[in-house]
Amino acid sequence: MRAIKDSVHDYIEVEGVAADLLDTEAFQRLRHVKQLSTVRLVYPSANHTRFEHSLGVYHLARRACRHLDIDGSRAEAVEAAALLHDVGHGPYGHQTEGVIERRLGRHHDDVHDIIATGEVGRVLESHGLDTDAVADRIDGQGRLGQLVSGELDVDRMDYLVRDAHHSGVPYGTIDQGRLLRALRYVDGDLVLAEGNVQSAESLLVARALMNATVYRHHVSRIAGTMLERACERLLDETSLHAEDFARMTDDELLAALRDCPATADAAARLGTRDLYKRACWLELDETPDHVVDATHAELRDLERDVAAAADLHPALVHLDVPGRPSMPESSTRVVVDGDVRRLHEESPLVQGLQAAQDVQWRAGVYAPEPHLDAVADAATATLGLDA
Amino acid sequence: MRAIKDSVHDYIEVEGVAADLLDTEAFQRLRHVKQLSTVRLVYPSANHTRFEHSLGVYHLARRACRHLDIDGSRAEAVEAAALLHDVGHGPYGHQTEGVIERRLGRHHDDVHDIIATGEVGRVLESHGLDTDAVADRIDGQGRLGQLVSGELDVDRMDYLVRDAHHSGVPYGTIDQGRLLRALRYVDGDLVLAEGNVQSAESLLVARALMNATVYRHHVSRIAGTMLERACERLLDETSLHAEDFARMTDDELLAALRDCPATADAAARLGTRDLYKRACWLELDETPDHVVDATHAELRDLERDVAAAADLHPALVHLDVPGRPSMPESSTRVVVDGDVRRLHEESPLVQGLQAAQDVQWRAGVYAPEPHLDAVADAATATLGLDA
Amino acid sequence: MRAIKDSVHDYIEVEGVAADLLDTEAFQRLRHVKQLSTVRLVYPSANHTRFEHSLGVYHLARRACRHLDIDGSRAEAVEAAALLHDVGHGPYGHQTEGVIERRLGRHHDDVHDIIATGEVGRVLESHGLDTDAVADRIDGQGRLGQLVSGELDVDRMDYLVRDAHHSGVPYGTIDQGRLLRALRYVDGDLVLAEGNVQSAESLLVARALMNATVYRHHVSRIAGTMLERACERLLDETSLHAEDFARMTDDELLAALRDCPATADAAARLGTRDLYKRACWLELDETPDHVVDATHAELRDLERDVAAAADLHPALVHLDVPGRPSMPESSTRVVVDGDVRRLHEESPLVQGLQAAQDVQWRAGVYAPEPHLDAVADAATATLGLDA
Amino acid sequence: MRAIKDSVHDYIEVEGVAADLLDTEAFQRLRHVKQLSTVRLVYPSANHTRFEHSLGVYHLARRACRHLDIDGSRAEAVEAAALLHDVGHGPYGHQTEGVIERRLGRHHDDVHDIIATGEVGRVLESHGLDTDAVADRIDGQGRLGQLVSGELDVDRMDYLVRDAHHSGVPYGTIDQGRLLRALRYVDGDLVLAEGNVQSAESLLVARALMNATVYRHHVSRIAGTMLERACERLLDETSLHAEDFARMTDDELLAALRDCPATADAAARLGTRDLYKRACWLELDETPDHVVDATHAELRDLERDVAAAADLHPALVHLDVPGRPSMPESSTRVVVDGDVRRLHEESPLVQGLQAAQDVQWRAGVYAPEPHLDAVADAATATLGLDA
Repeated sequence: MRAIKDSVHDYIEVEGVAADLLDTEAFQRLRHVKQLSTVRLVYPSANHTRFEHSLGVYHLARRACRHLDIDGSRAEAVEAAALLHDVGHGPYGHQTEGVIERRLGRHHDDVHDIIATGEVGRVLESHGLDTDAVADRIDGQGRLGQLVSGELDVDRMDYLVRDAHHSGVPYGTIDQGRLLRALRYVDGDLVLAEGNVQSAESLLVARALMNATVYRHHVSRIAGTMLERACERLLDETSLHAEDFARMTDDELLAALRDCPATADAAARLGTRDLYKRACWLELDETPDHVVDATHAELRDLERDVAAAADLHPALVHLDVPGRPSMPESSTRVVVDGDVRRLHEESPLVQGLQAAQDVQWRAGVYAPEPHLDAVADAATATLGLDA
Repeated sequence: MRAIKDSVHDYIEVEGVAADLLDTEAFQRLRHVKQLSTVRLVYPSANHTRFEHSLGVYHLARRACRHLDIDGSRAEAVEAAALLHDVGHGPYGHQTEGVIERRLGRHHDDVHDIIATGEVGRVLESHGLDTDAVADRIDGQGRLGQLVSGELDVDRMDYLVRDAHHSGVPYGTIDQGRLLRALRYVDGDLVLAEGNVQSAESLLVARALMNATVYRHHVSRIAGTMLERACERLLDETSLHAEDFARMTDDELLAALRDCPATADAAARLGTRDLYKRACWLELDETPDHVVDATHAELRDLERDVAAAADLHPALVHLDVPGRPSMPESSTRVVVDGDVRRLHEESPLVQGLQAAQDVQWRAGVYAPEPHLDAVADAATATLGLDA
Repeated sequence: MRAIKDSVHDYIEVEGVAADLLDTEAFQRLRHVKQLSTVRLVYPSANHTRFEHSLGVYHLARRACRHLDIDGSRAEAVEAAALLHDVGHGPYGHQTEGVIERRLGRHHDDVHDIIATGEVGRVLESHGLDTDAVADRIDGQGRLGQLVSGELDVDRMDYLVRDAHHSGVPYGTIDQGRLLRALRYVDGDLVLAEGNVQSAESLLVARALMNATVYRHHVSRIAGTMLERACERLLDETSLHAEDFARMTDDELLAALRDCPATADAAARLGTRDLYKRACWLELDETPDHVVDATHAELRDLERDVAAAADLHPALVHLDVPGRPSMPESSTRVVVDGDVRRLHEESPLVQGLQAAQDVQWRAGVYAPEPHLDAVADAATATLGLDA
Repeated sequence: MRAIKDSVHDYIEVEGVAADLLDTEAFQRLRHVKQLSTVRLVYPSANHTRFEHSLGVYHLARRACRHLDIDGSRAEAVEAAALLHDVGHGPYGHQTEGVIERRLGRHHDDVHDIIATGEVGRVLESHGLDTDAVADRIDGQGRLGQLVSGELDVDRMDYLVRDAHHSGVPYGTIDQGRLLRALRYVDGDLVLAEGNVQSAESLLVARALMNATVYRHHVSRIAGTMLERACERLLDETSLHAEDFARMTDDELLAALRDCPATADAAARLGTRDLYKRACWLELDETPDHVVDATHAELRDLERDVAAAADLHPALVHLDVPGRPSMPESSTRVVVDGDVRRLHEESPLVQGLQAAQDVQWRAGVYAPEPHLDAVADAATATLGLDA
């Protein structure tokens, strides 16, 4: 058994299939994919990677299995899924998700191909595990899949605490021990036992505070948008295959962006934190519905229209419109007076958090500093904003 | 200058009037008044006292003054008020507030007498400070008083973090540095600068999570109610003066309770954690209005009625009815788009927290374990609850 | 199973015999015996008690048993011993050890009587445990006793970390996880496995840094000496039995000292931190051998001689002479190249720590501030110091 | 003023020359140079970079200047030097120091050229700072240079704590507040004030524990040696200029190693943690003097001889011989009884630490796993080891 020192969980004991998965190239690659991608431009100490996060998720999955009396190969499948749950991430994690989905039609949680083949597949099979079953767990399917990917998964129990520890913010601090201890299966669904409405709320509150201060910080969003646009151009203008793109590390991507003339400027700006600025920063009720609900292609068209109206090269205007606010965790199952209920039914606090999401939602129009006024005017006219 | 090591703020530098106040008997007494009174029965490591908390509040007050460019004797008055803000607390802090208010007509924030006389008064005067002005600050009066006692005071910035550190819960973690840095005076009122709605929310969220898990834990409430009833009996049945009672330490009170035959049983139960249990635990909408809004005297009458109906000695039934939920912090002032607004106007999350308070509110009827059924029946009949 | 939140170990799961012992009066008394007695006069946030420390030691004992494959009633005996290891402590812990030993001829680790009788004895027997065997474990006897009281015991693994957490100093931080994982039995002796010389050293280093900054801080030593002298007088001049004295809590002792005319001054001084000061502070090589090696009775005689020479009441001079430096942990057993060795044989660092102890050793002569010069002169003449 | 959130110091306020230096390319490059290079292969969460470390050193330098009453442009020079102290580091920090010194004859503390030219030079000059004077501070020259680079510098006060926080080990925890507060200048030398021998010792102890568990972990040393050899080959076999090499980031270096046929194997091994293993691991007294004291060139010759004797390609044998143990911090100046003394004169603990260094010293001979026995035999014969 190997014991790995971790900044969050102290020692993580790795054994069985996990010990063999550790040394695969697909897993070691996660050392080079940062957990918080562009957030480090705002919180310089947030340089932790999906490698140690995945170890942490594996650790919590083991504790959960032990608590829930899941053992043998069922536990091994959950532990393998926990360890591998992020191998489907492209470089810069969530920032390239959209690109990869549009090019490959595949979500980062769909890792059936990655883990069925090569080294990872061989390791899983050598431990008698069905690769499809493990991939299903990662995708949140089935009773046990909920532990790995669901409203109450060990993924978020790790990242909230880890992201806080490394960024230095005092939020994200949840009571992992209590949450794990409160997990139960009722009719095949993962729920929190009686008396844990507040434990469930604390998870959502931690998430909401981390969203507001860390995950959705506007500087990180601007950098992320610049990165995503640059990735699109890179794939459009070079012979790079989307599959190869999806398997890059953060730095391989940055190097590729630097080497491609069409993206060299974006790469340099990201490298020295010389980012675009906000020409507009729109609240939900200021933003026309056709913009909020636009498809990716429609947004790119609008972007080009704004650039044209401002008489600028299209690459100089970025439109950043998140989807309508949603909060899947609000449907967490909790036992209240003996019945399984959805958290949002029980918790006015969760309803408040949902309403707060609407208030905090922002769409942005970004451009280089000298063009901010021109782009703001063009966006106002083109998008039909109130002047 | 003296530097005192602290578990929360690392080093606290004490100088000027504060250094002289440190050695007064009134201040040293706070070493023997625990910050969280009966909470230690649930969270055994929560043994910190109002002494180190007061040092922490003083430390934050100094930082706030420096940030707000308050200096000279105005700063000294704020610092003295911060250091002394808890000297008005009786033994077991908030648990004896009601007793003291009813007997002496004085709230713990009213310390005009305590600090005008004796050693403390002499020290303040020797530093050219007006004792009434310092007492006014402690009472939250005036522009500078808001720093010491108000919705944005340094008191709660210290205790949320300190109570979490010593109890071991992961909540209560606020961003003191950001909050202090965001303080401003606008038209004489203390406000948070533009861009800090979420900072303000995080303070309320921390408070709400600490309420739910620590401050209002039912075991602590039961012990606190037992203690309060015992204090009333002690004052009724002995020659102890209320003023002397109010100046006791935690352990002097416990010793007095042990020595008085009418309270010896309660003292023994508190000493060995052999507490009453919940016969009823009522939600707000289950509790008749005449109970929720009853005065202290009316509640004592109801308590006696329940005991009589259960054929028990009155001391064996405790009725614990908190006031209707309120959340003064929700009126925190924040600058939004250049205007000073109240937080609850801006924040749907705060509205959610307020609604959650209603849901979490509980009234309790407590009794020794063997009598629980009898007391539950008697309470149902006497208080007019739904059976 | 009960899970108790702890500031050091997060959740401590209490079950079996430990759950029943928790509610005994002998164990609940530890809530009122502070872990660091007079140290809180220097480090105000160090108010933690032997209650939560004992829970922590129990927690580490469980982890050690699991790691060492000790189970069944053998494990229960170790766990009970870990939980109860401090019930023999008098008020103010180590500060009254000497008094109790001299009056009762019993060391605090000798708890055969306490746990054989009353509630504790009944609980142990009801779980099929032999009370003498448990008491032997507490005394460090036998193979399993080494876990509870020995060079590698879980007692110090808890207190080093806990004392640091609550006092706020950055020392005392040992790697509990690694130490527990490295425990082995070789020929019936508890040792650290191959490759752990540095783990063992880190334990001694942590202890040495805590000694220097916390445990042996001169202010705490002065207060402790004042307390010990006051206890002797209290027992001499009142009808208090030594057995009753030994079972007091910290605050019962303080109250008794306040009530006794002969000790009221000491009690008041301790209460307001108005302590004696150092008239002399002597290094080991400045202190005559007959003083370093004096018995308690001889020291008291010397003390009286110094007071007489200074023309002062004997109670105004305190002589504080620790024993010659020793470091039992230096004989910790470690496996090196396959052989069990004693740490001091392997570690030049430990030899350095031992030498440092000699350098840091101090004897003190204490007196009230106005008499410092007179006492210094008298001590120089009486003790035969170099002027 | 900008306030940057940091995982160690909470908020770091950046202003004046530092704010302008922040955005220079030379400084932003440090985001891509990890603080602990190959250590992350052992401690996966240790991914922090020299960027945030440099901010931390700047922060401590400001605090030290304020404490020492250094202000105006003298303080600005110290703060600039603190911020820039690591811009001379090549990729992978200390692991490429030797390569750069041999190729460019320049130590990483010699940054006169780097900061005299380009953006950094222009920023310094625009704030009226002499670039040579700032470079001298970084090199430890002069009274103020000791703060930036010396036995008591703020560099080590930051990294010990930061490296511990991010790797997760409980060592490295020093009392920054006390150390800063104890700094004094006596006759132009930076010293620790009276009463701080133990503070000074704690710094050395922290360093020694971090050396043993983190900085000199054998896995990190193996990876570092592989990297250094690969860098030599890269420079030998490609047209890469040493100056360009020295300005690479970690990932640019890894990419270059992957692209060069002569180093592709090493790059792949480092990428997947498939490292050489220890064929020999020699204590100081097992290692012949001519090996311990060999020059770099002599060691390379010996390495080739061992490979030849084992009939292997020279790149398959690595000889890793650290210099003789030294401990510059042991000459830290401390005031003892009014005189400035060197720590090692006063502290037997430091003498123990020095002796422990000799005991912990190891030389390694590394090779791919299949060749370990052959290489061990060849090394024994070739280096003249005892079989």
